[in-house]
Amino acid sequence: MKLGRLNHIGVATPSIADSIVHYRDTMGATSIHKPFDLPEQGVKVCFVDTPTDSGMNGTQIELIEPLGEMSAINNFLEKNPLGGQHHVCFEVPDIEEARAEFEVMGKRILGPTRIGAHGTPIFFVHPKDMQGMLTEIMETPKEGAHWSN
Amino acid sequence: MKLGRLNHIGVATPSIADSIVHYRDTMGATSIHKPFDLPEQGVKVCFVDTPTDSGMNGTQIELIEPLGEMSAINNFLEKNPLGGQHHVCFEVPDIEEARAEFEVMGKRILGPTRIGAHGTPIFFVHPKDMQGMLTEIMETPKEGAHWSN
Repeated sequence: MKLGRLNHIGVATPSIADSIVHYRDTMGATSIHKPFDLPEQGVKVCFVDTPTDSGMNGTQIELIEPLGEMSAINNFLEKNPLGGQHHVCFEVPDIEEARAEFEVMGKRILGPTRIGAHGTPIFFVHPKDMQGMLTEIMETPKEGAHWSN
Repeated sequence: MKLGRLNHIGVATPSIADSIVHYRDTMGATSIHKPFDLPEQGVKVCFVDTPTDSGMNGTQIELIEPLGEMSAINNFLEKNPLGGQHHVCFEVPDIEEARAEFEVMGKRILGPTRIGAHGTPIFFVHPKDMQGMLTEIMETPKEGAHWSN
């Protein structure tokens, strides 16, 4: 495969409300999207845009807060109560093709391909096969959808 | 302050050589810079470019490997032998102004302002004051220097 855009870095937080204050007041973020629930993943999500020299879409910060007691990030927050860097997400043009390539390479894929926070198909690859980084692979939104969420 | 560009994510690795193979062969990176030593920080550094829709400079992956037994990332690698996400780095137009603002906000700054991997002044802010993320603040390279390193 060919490396795609670093769509976002996933940042776990015990409170998206507190994190919004941090990114707005401490870091000076000016484009913070509306939080929403993603029950399929067991998380509440909020995207923070980072600026670019081009003015086009930069790598986003994806704040994720546990949604429910079975949330996949409860474990992470038990070990890191303040939150922290949880995963990285790269775009690919075709999710099925990418999945097949990771499978051929013997990388452990975590669960089925499903719809992610940007409304396109995604899957996760095991951090132990990815140099210690939980890695999300996400299909690039189709033309014209770049600016949603 | 105003949020600046997400210059890079810092990724600790026990072996930059192995990581280069991973980013080239597994992830398909096509622009991997030459590794170099940064003895002031006790690390060997290698930047991997990620593509953007604009074709301009994207957020980089900064691979860091310990340089010497006193390296600041030895502790991190003891806890995470495979490596993993170590820090995030945001740009600011003026490092002294940013440092003063973080000081006024009561954020713990780790050590003096020094020259970072891109040849501009940087400082680090304590993860406990930054929602669990070790955060590097870096002065944006001057016009024309965007593509070096």
